[in-house]
Amino acid sequence: MTTRLLEQAAVRRGAAEGPPSLGLVPTMGGLHAGHASLAWTARAANDVVVASIFVNPLQFGDAADLDRYPRTLDDDVRLLGGCGVDVVFAPSVEDMYPGGEPLVRVGAGRMGTVFEGASRPGHFDGMLTVVSKLLNLGLPATTADYRAYFGEKDAQQLALVRRMVLDLNMPVRIEGVPIVRDADGLALSSRNRFLGPEERRAALVLSRVLGALRDRAARGEPLDLAGARAQVAAEDLVDLDYLDVVDPVSFTPRREDRTGEALAVVAARVGAVRLIDNIVLPVVA
Amino acid sequence: MTTRLLEQAAVRRGAAEGPPSLGLVPTMGGLHAGHASLAWTARAANDVVVASIFVNPLQFGDAADLDRYPRTLDDDVRLLGGCGVDVVFAPSVEDMYPGGEPLVRVGAGRMGTVFEGASRPGHFDGMLTVVSKLLNLGLPATTADYRAYFGEKDAQQLALVRRMVLDLNMPVRIEGVPIVRDADGLALSSRNRFLGPEERRAALVLSRVLGALRDRAARGEPLDLAGARAQVAAEDLVDLDYLDVVDPVSFTPRREDRTGEALAVVAARVGAVRLIDNIVLPVVA
Repeated sequence: MTTRLLEQAAVRRGAAEGPPSLGLVPTMGGLHAGHASLAWTARAANDVVVASIFVNPLQFGDAADLDRYPRTLDDDVRLLGGCGVDVVFAPSVEDMYPGGEPLVRVGAGRMGTVFEGASRPGHFDGMLTVVSKLLNLGLPATTADYRAYFGEKDAQQLALVRRMVLDLNMPVRIEGVPIVRDADGLALSSRNRFLGPEERRAALVLSRVLGALRDRAARGEPLDLAGARAQVAAEDLVDLDYLDVVDPVSFTPRREDRTGEALAVVAARVGAVRLIDNIVLPVVA
Repeated sequence: MTTRLLEQAAVRRGAAEGPPSLGLVPTMGGLHAGHASLAWTARAANDVVVASIFVNPLQFGDAADLDRYPRTLDDDVRLLGGCGVDVVFAPSVEDMYPGGEPLVRVGAGRMGTVFEGASRPGHFDGMLTVVSKLLNLGLPATTADYRAYFGEKDAQQLALVRRMVLDLNMPVRIEGVPIVRDADGLALSSRNRFLGPEERRAALVLSRVLGALRDRAARGEPLDLAGARAQVAAEDLVDLDYLDVVDPVSFTPRREDRTGEALAVVAARVGAVRLIDNIVLPVVA
């Protein structure tokens, strides 16, 4: 939203005057002279002023309070224009929470449980979550594309980081990088160095079982997760934590007869070392 | 950390080539060929590559696991250099958590409670918190100063937003703007419009009591919070929620005999409307 605005501001000012500044004024609308004071303060200190108007359902514990919160958009836009605000950002609930309530949230901790937080449980978590979203949405254009790289071995971590970036509108692209395996199939891990020779041999059952699941999926055969779990359990040194097939985005378990993208995930303790691994199951036509 | 780097990269490339790109590779060290694959992938796609090495205590439930996690910094830096990484960012625990454990955190929600999250409670909250910090620290330089404006009336909200920006390293400056009051002293609020005439008259006890506390503090007299609370309670239409004196940063209650910065905060229900107000108490010499 602000990228083009700032470019225009830079053009207007000329390169010699240095980078422009941006002031963001987050509001829930129902504006009065207190908000006008925020806008004027921002106007006096910044080249570009953006005000947001969003009644954030996440920070209302009481549905009745949310329903009757004043919504006076036309008056609000007029007031903000009169204060010299350049842009009013008034998203819908669907704009801000396209997937419904966000899964990943910002939490206020114990400071969110006293005074206002004691009277309004969850209020400050909802407030911080939407403020972090608005701060990220308002972030001025950067001088660079920004990407961050995560290994696909930690598949649930990668899925959660992607979800955080989505839920909190963080201005970065998350790139997953395929698992690297040793020649014997063991997924590389910083913890592999703690495996003794016998444990390492035993640990290979994890990648072997995942490979067999992938092959069965490719042939359109039943996955037989119970059999796969029994195969891991048969290894003396391996203590299975879980072996399952999940949706790679939500990590909800997939039914065996379901087609579509799926990830087989496994975790086990081998001696004192906890290992995880996963493999993408081919889509069955 | 990355600002100057990117400026240098821009100089090297010349303005005509467009903005540079930045790749961030977050790691916990103990690097192996899997991490090298992350670094090479980032190297191939970006002008500047930054790798971070930080063993994040927040994501270890088990202190023994944290203690024995491999720390191989010299080898790690060599490996990353060999992959063409431009900058290695290896902060200490004190660098990342200068105030001890962060108060405001990112939470993974229910997706953080299954599979790995079931075996490692809190792991994904700690991981998302540090990843959001690293993503914010690595954010490329913006084309603008960035400030956001919040009213001081919602004092606990403002304190929590400041704390979030600190705890999560968000690249924005938070500016508080003084409370605006009507001529009769009532702090402006979007909810004031719901007050009937009698309720509005009754509501004035809040600002009156706060003003009296400020005057007593200025004269070095005991605050007599009990008396102030009784004064609010004496108003028929006002149902006091809390009236207290707190540290304005942490919102922990202040003892009456303590000197130093303090905030008197009040909340009450007036009819169906919940109102809050606060006032800074002068420092007693």
